[in-house]
Amino acid sequence: MNQDYIKPDNWSIIEEGFDREQVKSSESLFSIGNGAMGQRANFEENYTGETFQGSYIAGIYYPDKTKVGWWKNGYPKYFAKVLNAPNWIGIDIEINGENFDLNTCTEVSNYRRELNMKEGWYHRSFHATLKNGTEVAVDVRRFLSLDLDEVGVINYEITPLNKDAKIIYKPYIDAGVTNEDANWDEKFWEPLDVKKSGNEAFVTAQTFKTHFKVTTFMQNTIFAKGEKQNLSPISVDTKSDKILFYYDVIVAKGEKSGIQKIGGYTVSLNHEDTILAAENVIKTALAKGYNQLLQDQIDAWAKIWEMSDITIDGDVKAQQGIRFNIFQLNQTYLGKDSRLNIGPKGFTGEKYGGSTYWDTEAYCIPFYMATKDQQVARNLLTYRYNQLDKAIENAKDNLGFTNGAALYPMVTMNGEECHNEWEITHEEIHRNGAIAFAIYNYYRFTGDYSYIPEKGLEVLIGIARFWHQRASFSKNKNQYMILGVTGPNEYENNINNNFYTNYIAKWCIDYAAEQIQKVSLEYPSDHKRIIEKVKLSDAELQEWNKVAGNMYFPRSEEMGIYLQQDGFLDKDLVRVKDLDRSQRPINQKWSWDRVLRSPYIKQADVLQCFYFFEDHFSKEELERNFDFYESFTVHESSLSPCVHSIQAALLDKMDMAYAFYLRTSRLDLDDYNKEVEEGCHITSMAGTWMSIVEGFGGMRVKNDALHFSPKIPKEWGGYSFKINFRNQIVKISVNHQETKLSLEGTQELTVFVNGTAVLVQPNN
Amino acid sequence: MNQDYIKPDNWSIIEEGFDREQVKSSESLFSIGNGAMGQRANFEENYTGETFQGSYIAGIYYPDKTKVGWWKNGYPKYFAKVLNAPNWIGIDIEINGENFDLNTCTEVSNYRRELNMKEGWYHRSFHATLKNGTEVAVDVRRFLSLDLDEVGVINYEITPLNKDAKIIYKPYIDAGVTNEDANWDEKFWEPLDVKKSGNEAFVTAQTFKTHFKVTTFMQNTIFAKGEKQNLSPISVDTKSDKILFYYDVIVAKGEKSGIQKIGGYTVSLNHEDTILAAENVIKTALAKGYNQLLQDQIDAWAKIWEMSDITIDGDVKAQQGIRFNIFQLNQTYLGKDSRLNIGPKGFTGEKYGGSTYWDTEAYCIPFYMATKDQQVARNLLTYRYNQLDKAIENAKDNLGFTNGAALYPMVTMNGEECHNEWEITHEEIHRNGAIAFAIYNYYRFTGDYSYIPEKGLEVLIGIARFWHQRASFSKNKNQYMILGVTGPNEYENNINNNFYTNYIAKWCIDYAAEQIQKVSLEYPSDHKRIIEKVKLSDAELQEWNKVAGNMYFPRSEEMGIYLQQDGFLDKDLVRVKDLDRSQRPINQKWSWDRVLRSPYIKQADVLQCFYFFEDHFSKEELERNFDFYESFTVHESSLSPCVHSIQAALLDKMDMAYAFYLRTSRLDLDDYNKEVEEGCHITSMAGTWMSIVEGFGGMRVKNDALHFSPKIPKEWGGYSFKINFRNQIVKISVNHQETKLSLEGTQELTVFVNGTAVLVQPNN
Repeated sequence: MNQDYIKPDNWSIIEEGFDREQVKSSESLFSIGNGAMGQRANFEENYTGETFQGSYIAGIYYPDKTKVGWWKNGYPKYFAKVLNAPNWIGIDIEINGENFDLNTCTEVSNYRRELNMKEGWYHRSFHATLKNGTEVAVDVRRFLSLDLDEVGVINYEITPLNKDAKIIYKPYIDAGVTNEDANWDEKFWEPLDVKKSGNEAFVTAQTFKTHFKVTTFMQNTIFAKGEKQNLSPISVDTKSDKILFYYDVIVAKGEKSGIQKIGGYTVSLNHEDTILAAENVIKTALAKGYNQLLQDQIDAWAKIWEMSDITIDGDVKAQQGIRFNIFQLNQTYLGKDSRLNIGPKGFTGEKYGGSTYWDTEAYCIPFYMATKDQQVARNLLTYRYNQLDKAIENAKDNLGFTNGAALYPMVTMNGEECHNEWEITHEEIHRNGAIAFAIYNYYRFTGDYSYIPEKGLEVLIGIARFWHQRASFSKNKNQYMILGVTGPNEYENNINNNFYTNYIAKWCIDYAAEQIQKVSLEYPSDHKRIIEKVKLSDAELQEWNKVAGNMYFPRSEEMGIYLQQDGFLDKDLVRVKDLDRSQRPINQKWSWDRVLRSPYIKQADVLQCFYFFEDHFSKEELERNFDFYESFTVHESSLSPCVHSIQAALLDKMDMAYAFYLRTSRLDLDDYNKEVEEGCHITSMAGTWMSIVEGFGGMRVKNDALHFSPKIPKEWGGYSFKINFRNQIVKISVNHQETKLSLEGTQELTVFVNGTAVLVQPNN
Repeated sequence: MNQDYIKPDNWSIIEEGFDREQVKSSESLFSIGNGAMGQRANFEENYTGETFQGSYIAGIYYPDKTKVGWWKNGYPKYFAKVLNAPNWIGIDIEINGENFDLNTCTEVSNYRRELNMKEGWYHRSFHATLKNGTEVAVDVRRFLSLDLDEVGVINYEITPLNKDAKIIYKPYIDAGVTNEDANWDEKFWEPLDVKKSGNEAFVTAQTFKTHFKVTTFMQNTIFAKGEKQNLSPISVDTKSDKILFYYDVIVAKGEKSGIQKIGGYTVSLNHEDTILAAENVIKTALAKGYNQLLQDQIDAWAKIWEMSDITIDGDVKAQQGIRFNIFQLNQTYLGKDSRLNIGPKGFTGEKYGGSTYWDTEAYCIPFYMATKDQQVARNLLTYRYNQLDKAIENAKDNLGFTNGAALYPMVTMNGEECHNEWEITHEEIHRNGAIAFAIYNYYRFTGDYSYIPEKGLEVLIGIARFWHQRASFSKNKNQYMILGVTGPNEYENNINNNFYTNYIAKWCIDYAAEQIQKVSLEYPSDHKRIIEKVKLSDAELQEWNKVAGNMYFPRSEEMGIYLQQDGFLDKDLVRVKDLDRSQRPINQKWSWDRVLRSPYIKQADVLQCFYFFEDHFSKEELERNFDFYESFTVHESSLSPCVHSIQAALLDKMDMAYAFYLRTSRLDLDDYNKEVEEGCHITSMAGTWMSIVEGFGGMRVKNDALHFSPKIPKEWGGYSFKINFRNQIVKISVNHQETKLSLEGTQELTVFVNGTAVLVQPNN
């Protein structure tokens, strides 16, 4: 925890004071992104202190050779790493002959960073005294354009405060970058070409193995005496993977000078000629100019907030928390491109590798469905459809399945599995369930059935086939079982009959069978096309049904609860509240075997099932299971508190719901787990959004209608959010007295509040 | 399988014909060792074909930095690797200006290798034609002296067959060697000093981190025209880690020339001044001379065979197999030094690292007890006693145990754990049981109780404390359980209540408590010393008793069998005989998750318990469990067939017993698993010995008496073996008609044959 470091503010993330120990954490928190690229808040000028350099381009990855201690059959050969991309933000600076470096300055004061979430820019200002005695005021603003998403802009200003200064600005592009987590210290980038022209430069490099070609570009403009200088670089350093321009200006004491750097990437995913594309995008950006680019940025973010903002009255920290979460989600993924997905660290770090986990389907899709056009969620579904062949290949070649059974990877970039830990990679197969559930959830929310006959049904069939083959028959119990799995609770490995897994497996088969039936009736030509393609017979459907119809679910009748897995009640059931605080977090304090045999739960598991299939169970059943499992849950996954918060709210345990909400919403801002320097927990941020909307707001979609059951934490004066429900925007405002509904749309809409139908008239 | 490659012979391992594809496998099979050092059968002359170079020194290791994919708490930082030692056998040879290299010769004929197990030497001879047309006959003999165990000898002879030849012999020592399995390509050896004097040279190097200092030495004598030449090297190449001498001789066609090279190691484990020690040992060896050294070798091996030989009539392959096993065990470990142990690959390869596994206690000790003086087995027990503190440290620091609980490592060199795979390292805890069992077994066999009050009791207490803490109470079943383990069957991971583990845990606690009682009565001062040292109270003993007295054992009453673990009967129980042959070995054909959820058993597990505690169960119980588990066992561990062979013999399933025997005894010679090039399976060779002695011979020790229940496979005419029983040598010869007993000793001895007491009179 680092609770009071970030200043509370409704719209901005603010750091005050320069603390070397905090540089890496703040680099994560002040990260910026625009869906297509992003970067940590590394300093533009050289910094010799502790820093974690990171720039990232969506969809660009490197398959790093797998590193394991002991090879197991079925491991993938490569691990697709989020790639640290060439650096375009760098501006080395020399002031009166001294390299400007905050780490070596004799004094740094008035240091302030602000990430303005409302307008989408990052700002840093301070006074610094160099070793040579020169005192300067520095003011830097940086943003990545939402409109021109290949372009970022830096405005870097220096004012000498105590004497005149000769300032040399040395903007550069550097493709000689590495990943901190490279397995074998391999080079990931191969430089191809360095080109310059006037104040523009282009470094083209391609990734080894994957051969993504990227042109990193810059264009520089120098300002002094209040106006643009028509300067060309006085000198240029060129290496095979780097180019650096020199501009010098003499600046009088008290006078401002500066450099505006336009930079970014054009990539072969989108352009045949990346250099030409870079030249064009520079032209477009220059034509707009800095001020217009900034205004466009403010407007674009206003549009995003208009739809996705959540307001909270009377609790600045809660307000700041939810906005930070919404802001980061939008920085990471805007849904324009079905080749992209939502990496667990977004553009804030390289940890975990891969871009796609089950997080997307289990946690992120609801957020994007409700705050964006439905095409965005559909793109996320299509991403999996496009990778279906790879999922079938994975099941077949790595794991020995047949007949088109599909196992989606645990972690992926291009559809290939890239995780390598048998207990996760091979056994955390429940991920397949969330992918099917998302298809159901998409249709439930949007009412857009067309996705299923077009694409979804093939995915559902591949997944159903997997579950059918993966289950085995126990003669002993005369039921089908799923042995040797890891459930969502990763603090258990290789267990038998994980309730969540068995339940969602059965559900997947049933749902696939239902959809086959429905498509055959309503979309006969799609049905014919698909059935012929996947060669599905009635006999096979009957086999599916045998498994789904006779699935075993571990349960204690006596306690009225489902068992997380076989044997759970044999554990030494000491509750978390009775566990010595010094033993936590257990994943840092205990050896792995001890974690495994303990009863402690990393994240919602049985409760995840109750979350997905809430209407399959009674509230009393939920309460019994919640009370039991919550008492053993340590929430050492960022994905855990949100589900507990939603269910606590449903069960009128509002203090608990609020505590879980705070934990999820300020996880990174308050650095709960002392690891924010590695990057932010992007995907769990969607869970924070759910905590409010589905938890406090009680939003559900049932029978094509929106339902709310609003509750409000006593700490808040009120809160509001909007939901894009089938192209009409419903706004709900809740305070301690009342719930107000309004509608931006064209048609009246019946909404249910606490079970009562309310007719809402459109505003306009 | 490579069934007919090695020629059948009663006393020798013979290869005929030069096959590049077999070089690495033969390097393993023709390995030589003398307990203190050993090496693969690498060629002396340079060989540019595929080869796996390996020389090893007992007790010398390197802690290689751990390599894992995903770090888990509790993993050790280092993995102690068997170290490839400096090469002293190398002799580069130039013949008429051409480097002599079997890989580039235009013809190789009459190629023959022999490992003469009776006399303990390795011989290689062939004719080769160099590219320059020179045809030579080569004859090389090498052995590692059992008497002077720092010394090896090579006699290398060349006879030009078709023309005169100028031959340059270039004997060398090279410390610039590496391990094939180094994790990080680190250098393991730091060269310290290179010294030469006349025909002698000394390269001193020390291991990084562990700082073992080793002087590798050589002394060379050149022979030509039938006599020793008084030659000094004409030139010397010296590098920091290598020295190479040049000797040239002109040899007439048909005339023999040669080099005798004495070489080996003196190590800081045994000498303060390793160079001085090397000079001395060279003097001693030279004083004896080649012929005497060879005669001493033959005599020393005769002494070993006199005690440990097993004869088999009418089945050359079986005879060759058992002698190969006995020979290799004696090459690996002679029991002189309690700092040493029996590595799974001995001196034949570097795989697995470490030198000590539970193999020693579970499989090797019975062989050494019965074929050597009892001090040898006692040294093996003392090895663990000396590492007790490390075992306590391991349990405490890595795994969170307290109060002197000891967990011995899975793999070790110096007592520290060096294995890093959580499912093995942290969970294969049954190893602790075998270490306690060996103490019991030693006393049962030798009658030497003194070890227990002196050393063994402390080990037993540390182990009992471990089991007491490791068990947890299940309120649900009202019994103690051991959750989250891997049993001997490593094809299951993280299972609950492995029968073998639970059983031996209970036994360990009970046995420790009994021995505390016995020592208190019979050795009160030892009792006082130990109890004070380990601070053991009566209250703690009562706590132990609660756990041992109420341990849960999974069982099917209906089937009358113990369950390998909770839930075993829920598996899809397809027997091995019904499994498609193409699916085996499953550890090569299946992904790990599939192996785990299958019912297939890598090696005896429940049956291992029946093997250790045979008299705790009825024969009917054994038969039911054997019939059930044997049908699911794939024997993909080298340690499995021997236990099955012994039990099959006991159950009068002689065909099965014989088949298992052949599999274990010729595992390496016939290269069952296509992996002998990595080295031989040394520890399982003791299991082969047990298959005959305990299996066919039915040897047991009960109530201080030897028992036999001899059976004989129909394929054999007869067999015989000897047992050193409490300093009297009992020889038993079995054929289809009768069993003969004889005794080399001083006192008559009552032995039981099929339950009937037989009084055997001494021969002499």
